Amino acid sequence: MKPPVLLYACPTVDQKGWVTALAAACPGIDIRLWPDTGDKAEIEYAFVWKQPPGILSDLPNLQVIFSLGAGVEHVLTDPSLPSHLPLIRMVDPTLVTGMVEFVVMQVLHYHRSMPDYAAQQKAGLWKQLPQRLPSERRIGILGLGELGAACAQALTGFGFNVAGWARTAKDLPNVATYVGPTELQPFLARTDILVCLLPLTGQTRGILNRETLSILPRGAYLINAARGGHLVEDDLIPLLDDGQLAGATLDVFTVEPLPASHPFWTHPQITIVPHAAALTHPATASRIVAANIDRHRRGEALLHVVDRARGY
Amino acid sequence: MKPPVLLYACPTVDQKGWVTALAAACPGIDIRLWPDTGDKAEIEYAFVWKQPPGILSDLPNLQVIFSLGAGVEHVLTDPSLPSHLPLIRMVDPTLVTGMVEFVVMQVLHYHRSMPDYAAQQKAGLWKQLPQRLPSERRIGILGLGELGAACAQALTGFGFNVAGWARTAKDLPNVATYVGPTELQPFLARTDILVCLLPLTGQTRGILNRETLSILPRGAYLINAARGGHLVEDDLIPLLDDGQLAGATLDVFTVEPLPASHPFWTHPQITIVPHAAALTHPATASRIVAANIDRHRRGEALLHVVDRARGY
Repeated sequence: MKPPVLLYACPTVDQKGWVTALAAACPGIDIRLWPDTGDKAEIEYAFVWKQPPGILSDLPNLQVIFSLGAGVEHVLTDPSLPSHLPLIRMVDPTLVTGMVEFVVMQVLHYHRSMPDYAAQQKAGLWKQLPQRLPSERRIGILGLGELGAACAQALTGFGFNVAGWARTAKDLPNVATYVGPTELQPFLARTDILVCLLPLTGQTRGILNRETLSILPRGAYLINAARGGHLVEDDLIPLLDDGQLAGATLDVFTVEPLPASHPFWTHPQITIVPHAAALTHPATASRIVAANIDRHRRGEALLHVVDRARGY
Repeated sequence: MKPPVLLYACPTVDQKGWVTALAAACPGIDIRLWPDTGDKAEIEYAFVWKQPPGILSDLPNLQVIFSLGAGVEHVLTDPSLPSHLPLIRMVDPTLVTGMVEFVVMQVLHYHRSMPDYAAQQKAGLWKQLPQRLPSERRIGILGLGELGAACAQALTGFGFNVAGWARTAKDLPNVATYVGPTELQPFLARTDILVCLLPLTGQTRGILNRETLSILPRGAYLINAARGGHLVEDDLIPLLDDGQLAGATLDVFTVEPLPASHPFWTHPQITIVPHAAALTHPATASRIVAANIDRHRRGEALLHVVDRARGY
């Protein structure tokens, strides 16, 4: 059997680590580095992230498109993306591990009053603050896909009171599930620490805004590790300044890198992470890509195919 | 049966919460608040923390001494402590929960480079830092008692490479155990993040010092949530300043409250928590005390008795 031919087209991502990992996971694979495509008719697979629009539409034998990221909105923005081809979102076990680490870390950080203790240290103040039991702390996860479900499960392991909100009903042990637009209000009203792990779609864009965040109990915390487009950014600082929100951890922004002049950088209640909550790990992710290529070549069903109507 | 009579003698601790909780857990109990002992011959039980030396030696019918804290060195410093009576250390499920939260939180904080990201935010710098897999991060727990074992287990759940050091061999799943003074050196040499949860005894006092902390790989982190006496405090800042240690989280200090003039307060690589890593929770702890009083009155063996020769 001829080795598979894959086009690598992720211009904003470190190329060397990925190409090395893909080659190791798929021995014999013929990787073409865009724009050096060679004979375009030979290309069967494409591995893309923020690809230049149009580059996939003139590959006559392209069969599967792989996204380097879990969210595919940066792939779908290409209007010439061949609509008949399967698009595969990244499901990397290391991505899940990393997101669980990040979400558990920041939930505990707020649960255990670490921003307040840091302020006390700055003031030279020795004072124990009340310690709530985890069962008294209500965590709410927006989005119960691969990442949200894994985070919800990890948090129940600590004894937190965990609920989730999703488009369709889910069955997760010890996690109360709220479903669809009509149940967003009661979900927010019972949430002390809100974690956003939604896909970015037409339905979820701007879901974190002045109106929805005002439904949270006063003094709630926000952790956004999904996409910048989920948050109406101009609404955040007024909510922090008037005490409706006590703090926010933001991993993602409408414009990345976050512009140097942006007021988020210097706000004392905002923690900024440069889109690093969970990095796809080239070695483990490439093994998932390789397994899917094998399935395709054996004529088996592909895993993790995006439903383009839903957008994830 | 006459209700039990208990002397409450914890002058540095909020009295109201504890007395309410003990009364709720032990209906009918007769609680005497030191120094108002009433008839000393009636007192059978004492509940103590930093008790004034000598107050227990003239209670002729005292039968069991309960420590409010998990560590008992503040009880044992009383030279007139009746040596024939059982001393019970506090084993409170909420104390364990709180310590697991705290240790997991700070291990993740260092593992995920949060101090470096905070420095980058201050400088307005957007830069992803390398993310190690949890299997590539070596956590070392000094002390594998109730608290250390629970923390070790929680950390293995995240996929960390976890080892522990204890006086005697322990069998914990997925935790390599190092035993006794001769194995301290190899334990430290393989530890990137060191967590101290030892009891404070003659053998463990000062165990965190220039010599031992220099065995850690360069750039290691220290989390001390045991007792201030475990750390030779004057050794810490030079180790941080020359880069041998990258950061330290200290919950405990030789003198508490930490004096206002102490250089730890303002050191950028030290995180200070005011002995609040895990607070004994009056409601859950009082139920444990009540259960032990019941056992004693039924003539059953007491749980969690301190071995005074070991000191814990």
